[in-house]
Amino acid sequence: MPPVITAFATSPDRGQGLARDMRVRWALEEVSQPYDVRLLSSAEMKEPAHLALHPFGQIPTYEEGDLSLFETGAIVLHIAEHHAGLLPIDAKVRARAINWMFAALNTVEPPILELANAMLLESDKPWSKERLPLVMDRVRDRLEQLSAHLGDTDWVDGKFSAGDLMMVHALQRLKPSGLLDEYPNLSAYVARGEARHAYMRAFAAQLEVFQMSEHPKSICAQLGH
Amino acid sequence: MPPVITAFATSPDRGQGLARDMRVRWALEEVSQPYDVRLLSSAEMKEPAHLALHPFGQIPTYEEGDLSLFETGAIVLHIAEHHAGLLPIDAKVRARAINWMFAALNTVEPPILELANAMLLESDKPWSKERLPLVMDRVRDRLEQLSAHLGDTDWVDGKFSAGDLMMVHALQRLKPSGLLDEYPNLSAYVARGEARHAYMRAFAAQLEVFQMSEHPKSICAQLGH
Repeated sequence: MPPVITAFATSPDRGQGLARDMRVRWALEEVSQPYDVRLLSSAEMKEPAHLALHPFGQIPTYEEGDLSLFETGAIVLHIAEHHAGLLPIDAKVRARAINWMFAALNTVEPPILELANAMLLESDKPWSKERLPLVMDRVRDRLEQLSAHLGDTDWVDGKFSAGDLMMVHALQRLKPSGLLDEYPNLSAYVARGEARHAYMRAFAAQLEVFQMSEHPKSICAQLGH
Repeated sequence: MPPVITAFATSPDRGQGLARDMRVRWALEEVSQPYDVRLLSSAEMKEPAHLALHPFGQIPTYEEGDLSLFETGAIVLHIAEHHAGLLPIDAKVRARAINWMFAALNTVEPPILELANAMLLESDKPWSKERLPLVMDRVRDRLEQLSAHLGDTDWVDGKFSAGDLMMVHALQRLKPSGLLDEYPNLSAYVARGEARHAYMRAFAAQLEVFQMSEHPKSICAQLGH
């Protein structure tokens, strides 16, 4: 029985792949593991059945036999620990790759989430225009440091790892802001992640879910059903 | 040789224990491991020597032989994987405890950091008073869900684990806002963490650093130096 993940029945970003199920799909593709998907509406995410799996009422969750997890960091780490391809074998290099997973989630992503809140939830507020540059500068502080660290290397610490997977996906949310374009090596880093075959397979899978939700009949016709 | 961590020479919170070195000190105390501390000024954190250890120019870092890490999540996980006391032995229960570490850092802490920014960095802005309730409500959304999950249990998932350590410390930053008082079971949860002997030893150690920075002569006199 392959593991089962949950995802949006209708993705809020219209198939751009910014929802967090992408991280898990991408990780599973990197290690060539099949998986099933259970789709949920936003309303279903707040119902007791889902809250029992995910106390914060979000997606994705990950169910494998009687184990269930609900944080993408923990899910990707679990997958990486059980299948080769996402973490180095040497214990120290491995600890450093895990360090970069946490850096993506707890140092780089929080100001990006704050910017997303400013752009999505507060765009109609009277302070929006004056405040946005402040929030963008907080993101720039982190991008500047990450850009300096990355330099002209391909990945954050040697070979591609789960740390890069989390970092690339956290940075992708910056695209609508234009901030990523200010750091050519970070734009190239994100593009490098997106060019991986595993990423492309994961992206196509989530896009298909969205297209099906929008035009179920035409997709079914294409598929010959 | 015990591991070496870095910490503020003069803690910005004046010894309240809210800086992230507390997480590492607490973890090391839980597993009864000695450690050394190297103190840094805010200026020193931005110098090349420290940036080579921590690309984002913060504290703490963790050096153990030729391994160096800079994210508290990764440091605490590394400590927990090498010493008994912070993670369950059963693989599935262990994966769930790690899941709660990530939940603390990537789901609960981001809105708390946003609130800290609103209270510390934007308190003099014209929008501050009108915006603050919105930001507090985003924190309340998470606290409500965490409170519902915790119910009347002592810890987030069975016995105390590294997941609780990270969660308690993330929640502590809410004290100045008064938000924690709205959820009696979460206040009690934080108090339960603070009552652990390992927490108290870690707290005393960071407080001593601050007191020494403020009144070096009187402390030395007390110590008989």
